[in-house]
Amino acid sequence: MAEFDIGKGKTARRAYGFDDIMIVPTRRTRDPEDIDLTWEIDAYRFDLPFMASAMDSVVSPSTAIEIGQQGGVGVLNLEGLWTRYENADGILEEISTLDNAASVQRMQQLYEAPVIPELIVERIAEINAAGVVSCAAISPQRTKAHIDTILTADLGMLVIQQPVLSAEHVSNNDSEPLNLKTFIRGLELPVIVGDCASYAAALHLMRTGAAGVLVGVGTGRASTVRTVLGIGGPQATALADVRAARIRHLDETGVYTQIIADGSMATGGDVAKAIVCGADAVMLGAPLAAAVEAPGRGWHWGVQSVHPTVPQGGRVPVEPVGTLAEIIHGPSHADDGSVNLAGGLRQSMAMCGYTDLKDFQKAEILVSQK
Amino acid sequence: MAEFDIGKGKTARRAYGFDDIMIVPTRRTRDPEDIDLTWEIDAYRFDLPFMASAMDSVVSPSTAIEIGQQGGVGVLNLEGLWTRYENADGILEEISTLDNAASVQRMQQLYEAPVIPELIVERIAEINAAGVVSCAAISPQRTKAHIDTILTADLGMLVIQQPVLSAEHVSNNDSEPLNLKTFIRGLELPVIVGDCASYAAALHLMRTGAAGVLVGVGTGRASTVRTVLGIGGPQATALADVRAARIRHLDETGVYTQIIADGSMATGGDVAKAIVCGADAVMLGAPLAAAVEAPGRGWHWGVQSVHPTVPQGGRVPVEPVGTLAEIIHGPSHADDGSVNLAGGLRQSMAMCGYTDLKDFQKAEILVSQK
Amino acid sequence: MAEFDIGKGKTARRAYGFDDIMIVPTRRTRDPEDIDLTWEIDAYRFDLPFMASAMDSVVSPSTAIEIGQQGGVGVLNLEGLWTRYENADGILEEISTLDNAASVQRMQQLYEAPVIPELIVERIAEINAAGVVSCAAISPQRTKAHIDTILTADLGMLVIQQPVLSAEHVSNNDSEPLNLKTFIRGLELPVIVGDCASYAAALHLMRTGAAGVLVGVGTGRASTVRTVLGIGGPQATALADVRAARIRHLDETGVYTQIIADGSMATGGDVAKAIVCGADAVMLGAPLAAAVEAPGRGWHWGVQSVHPTVPQGGRVPVEPVGTLAEIIHGPSHADDGSVNLAGGLRQSMAMCGYTDLKDFQKAEILVSQK
Amino acid sequence: MAEFDIGKGKTARRAYGFDDIMIVPTRRTRDPEDIDLTWEIDAYRFDLPFMASAMDSVVSPSTAIEIGQQGGVGVLNLEGLWTRYENADGILEEISTLDNAASVQRMQQLYEAPVIPELIVERIAEINAAGVVSCAAISPQRTKAHIDTILTADLGMLVIQQPVLSAEHVSNNDSEPLNLKTFIRGLELPVIVGDCASYAAALHLMRTGAAGVLVGVGTGRASTVRTVLGIGGPQATALADVRAARIRHLDETGVYTQIIADGSMATGGDVAKAIVCGADAVMLGAPLAAAVEAPGRGWHWGVQSVHPTVPQGGRVPVEPVGTLAEIIHGPSHADDGSVNLAGGLRQSMAMCGYTDLKDFQKAEILVSQK
Repeated sequence: MAEFDIGKGKTARRAYGFDDIMIVPTRRTRDPEDIDLTWEIDAYRFDLPFMASAMDSVVSPSTAIEIGQQGGVGVLNLEGLWTRYENADGILEEISTLDNAASVQRMQQLYEAPVIPELIVERIAEINAAGVVSCAAISPQRTKAHIDTILTADLGMLVIQQPVLSAEHVSNNDSEPLNLKTFIRGLELPVIVGDCASYAAALHLMRTGAAGVLVGVGTGRASTVRTVLGIGGPQATALADVRAARIRHLDETGVYTQIIADGSMATGGDVAKAIVCGADAVMLGAPLAAAVEAPGRGWHWGVQSVHPTVPQGGRVPVEPVGTLAEIIHGPSHADDGSVNLAGGLRQSMAMCGYTDLKDFQKAEILVSQK
Repeated sequence: MAEFDIGKGKTARRAYGFDDIMIVPTRRTRDPEDIDLTWEIDAYRFDLPFMASAMDSVVSPSTAIEIGQQGGVGVLNLEGLWTRYENADGILEEISTLDNAASVQRMQQLYEAPVIPELIVERIAEINAAGVVSCAAISPQRTKAHIDTILTADLGMLVIQQPVLSAEHVSNNDSEPLNLKTFIRGLELPVIVGDCASYAAALHLMRTGAAGVLVGVGTGRASTVRTVLGIGGPQATALADVRAARIRHLDETGVYTQIIADGSMATGGDVAKAIVCGADAVMLGAPLAAAVEAPGRGWHWGVQSVHPTVPQGGRVPVEPVGTLAEIIHGPSHADDGSVNLAGGLRQSMAMCGYTDLKDFQKAEILVSQK
Repeated sequence: MAEFDIGKGKTARRAYGFDDIMIVPTRRTRDPEDIDLTWEIDAYRFDLPFMASAMDSVVSPSTAIEIGQQGGVGVLNLEGLWTRYENADGILEEISTLDNAASVQRMQQLYEAPVIPELIVERIAEINAAGVVSCAAISPQRTKAHIDTILTADLGMLVIQQPVLSAEHVSNNDSEPLNLKTFIRGLELPVIVGDCASYAAALHLMRTGAAGVLVGVGTGRASTVRTVLGIGGPQATALADVRAARIRHLDETGVYTQIIADGSMATGGDVAKAIVCGADAVMLGAPLAAAVEAPGRGWHWGVQSVHPTVPQGGRVPVEPVGTLAEIIHGPSHADDGSVNLAGGLRQSMAMCGYTDLKDFQKAEILVSQK
Repeated sequence: MAEFDIGKGKTARRAYGFDDIMIVPTRRTRDPEDIDLTWEIDAYRFDLPFMASAMDSVVSPSTAIEIGQQGGVGVLNLEGLWTRYENADGILEEISTLDNAASVQRMQQLYEAPVIPELIVERIAEINAAGVVSCAAISPQRTKAHIDTILTADLGMLVIQQPVLSAEHVSNNDSEPLNLKTFIRGLELPVIVGDCASYAAALHLMRTGAAGVLVGVGTGRASTVRTVLGIGGPQATALADVRAARIRHLDETGVYTQIIADGSMATGGDVAKAIVCGADAVMLGAPLAAAVEAPGRGWHWGVQSVHPTVPQGGRVPVEPVGTLAEIIHGPSHADDGSVNLAGGLRQSMAMCGYTDLKDFQKAEILVSQK
């Protein structure tokens, strides 16, 4: 992939997002019923390649259970409201009634409450009790402090995620940084790490022994990282770069690392594009925040949104479009692809002539002018 | 046409739509009256290279007759309302009065009624009786079931079209797929097949012995296939690719297959662009749905719009701009090109210096930044 | 300039408009007072390189005089309202009061009145009497019929312009086409011909012996040729192509042909871009239709707008921004560049470090993404 | 950096703005507290690489002091209202109450008052008295006339800036132009010159011995130079070009010239992009005009906005978003990056893995389609 000069003294590469690309059908079509959407990571097998983002507007213990029952896996944010407040539902109710002008500042305050280890145990237990795979996310800065609690709670799968940056950590630079490589190899449970958006960063994360890497920086409907910090990596290019890192890592170690596209997807078609670019699964935020039972109650935000000094994005409104079951499995009576994400992905694969996710990664793509 | 990397692990090709291109005039102009717009396919000769899309909002038996009398050919959808309901006009009237929120779900229901063979015969007979060429479309999944009825009805030209996907078929995967090659060669009447958007798919369809292929996937004003499924092929590139397939097929077999651009055209200028990119004729939907006598009564939709589980697009409003005769032949008193499509095409060819459609395919084009 | 494939079976070239480009300053600036804007064509010398378009909303005999007195030259349309109606002012007043729905049809009717030779003589005489250079435009189809009248009237400069297509001519194909080469060489007065947008067409026109060629197809604020007919040529590329034709013509004949950019300019900065791309002068429509004394009375339209069967564009509103003197010479109290076009051009040349128009054609340009 | 043909007779280069690019994180992140934002120019050391633009809506003596106390440096316009009117605050109050229609003309009048040397001395003295570095801008045309006054006033740093073009100078071409090279070398205080946007112009300015060059032409929220004059240079490309000039100048002379990006930045992320493209510091206008204590009182304009004959841009409204201290250092309760510019820059560098500004210039960038 060629670099080019943006001026006489600086080079750049060109990058593409999902909106820039389209999938090309082959000459064959398949029956949507013949499509296999199962996704395997480590010892787990999911009916769908869908993770729900570790965002308080998307995943509560109860929606994690519902998403698990629908075939995916919800990721609970261990540094969010559910582990800071016994009555998290009440806090979420309050947030939903804030007016826009006041919301950022009030939310900044709410996220300053301490994380309570007992709540970590309680929330994970609630999910485990429902018989679905429990999965939760924590930042590298907080991982050491809480890992014993997490292991005690018998978590199914751990996500160590940088953008899930604990608000308090900003001024807390006295702790020794987490050595992911040593740490991950010492754990029994599978770990997913992220987010990254480049070949070098992905290769680095793969070498830690993680079961999967999250791909996506400066994406997502509730994020303004690109505007506020100038940082970003359009998803199609980011996934293609990380895919190349996986090929190299596989060649060097024989280990196939799962790639999970995180952000920038609104429809089953966007999920399809992520798969074609190299993802094995996707992590969905805003599309699931649009569920009638979503904890955000019509609002969506991330942890960067409540950064204490440099908020990147804010609380954005999301119009409820159906239940979680409907958003995931349909049937849809909407015409914009916001409902029936699995059906959209299935239909896309069928129309293009592919029957499983790994095969679909071979599909050809076109780039159009905007 | 060079592939390029969108990232280190995935390549793509660049694709162009009609909005990206412009036709370049030669140094000569012609008199619009000297322009020949006749189109020949198999034994038929039409005054105009215009087919009307097999969409219930565009083609009814009566508009098929009117379009035939104006020089083109209307394609009746054999899996639409006219073959499911004796009183199709009443159903269309009901649809026109639905409010937007309810329309997708009610239309999904309406398209669940069974196709009635007697109505197929009746509708085709009505068109034949008027002395114009009858033409109708059916999906590959339904072709075997209805071909005897169709032949009995003495249809003039058959369109076998994938996106005209019967709603019921989705869960009906027990029938053996249609072998187009054997099937088409066994028929007396000319067959047009589609839609396709690539070199390989077009070559495959040409080798079935079809008289023409339809080009267009994820295009059309009432379609959101690109958004909902992530699939698409901008028309200028799709036509240019299919044109190359025609050259190869002609070289291999001596047979010239008609290329019919399907979708993405709003004006005579858009039709002109389709021709220049390689089309011999065009299939028009939304522009004809804007006729005062259009069965959609101010609304336009396709069969994907009423897909039972993953609707792609919905019922879109179209402002009536004139009679079918005026939309096709003018004169126009509108300034946006929506009226007098034949006149616009004629004027475009005259200004660029070409006198017939085949010659016009040589015209040069420019691509502009958006 | 490389061609590229837009698909496997069709090539194209990339083209750029004024909005795509910017002028690069040199390391030197000049004093605006030192800038020379004079323009010479044949034996005429104008203070400014500004022609006013042969459009009824822009040039009347009285505005032609005013524009001449301000340093430019107005071109009267010899097939417009002034040569069809003795009381053209009354007709223009009527047009200004039409409601939008009715305007195209009524204007189509008004332009069906015959051209009256006596009025040609009368209008030209009025302009000549004021002591400014008279200039008028006619279509090639009408040139033979009226040339004697034109010569009798002692016109200063003739424009033979294709888009000034007489409405009646459309069905009148019995006359022998005008041989421009023979015709122009036989005349005493300088002739400007157009419009063209390509190297080949421009070279052809230059070889007729014309003093100047007009460049611009599918441009201009009142034109929808690009939409309605699919035809166009973005101005920066069109001018650069025609400039190359001029170099070749100069090499072959020793004759330097004037290039006049016609359309797509709204400010002095746009005029500057036209010059830098190769133009010696510009023809302005919409910017001058915004004069308080403009005959269009707050409306702007071209002859394609009133085409009897395929109108391309319509009557567009233009907000009056000042007198002709103010629009041309300022001073401006507006901040959008719509007033003081000569001042804007002068300021642009000064900031970039050039003192005359020919020198300014050397300036460097940048192309930006949109 | 390759040139390409925009047509057969003219070449161009492609250029990129901040909106076209994104910064790519490395595989490492840093703690925001470890980031060093200090900027050194000549003998001065500032806590932040922020200059405030020499615009009357941004810098008054009191805001210059406040900006200095916050770690940056405010540049007072020596040809603005503060050196023309003893009661500049009253004049600014009047401007804030003008209605939009009248504002350009009234402001043109207000800037016709003469510059009063005593006020130059008084304003600089006020800033010096507060113990911050005084900095002020003047145009090359006025430099000779006022340099003795400036030196008497004991100014800390001088900016000689072309776009700070005195209104009166336009018709005053009798004075000998300033020889920057001789002039700057003869001064004791450090001089910053600009603006430029190209390699050649920057190299020329660096060779004058200036301590820094300003980069930016046709940028900035209150400027319409690109529209009105057709001139411009997107900032990412301009900075990369000037960076190459610095490398050459450093190679030829051993002197490292500071590059200061001037305009086109709204957030800390935009500042980050400027640094990555090669800037050592930035000059901010509109973002600081949004301070509650900004002299523009909710309005923002530049000196081109009040050009007596060709105004380029006008008085644009800016919504106050916080105090100067908040805009610079936060904390932010806004989600759009308009508040806490230093924090945004710091956070951007931390997320990308760089600890000081010079190191951050090495960061990689991506260009995306628009």
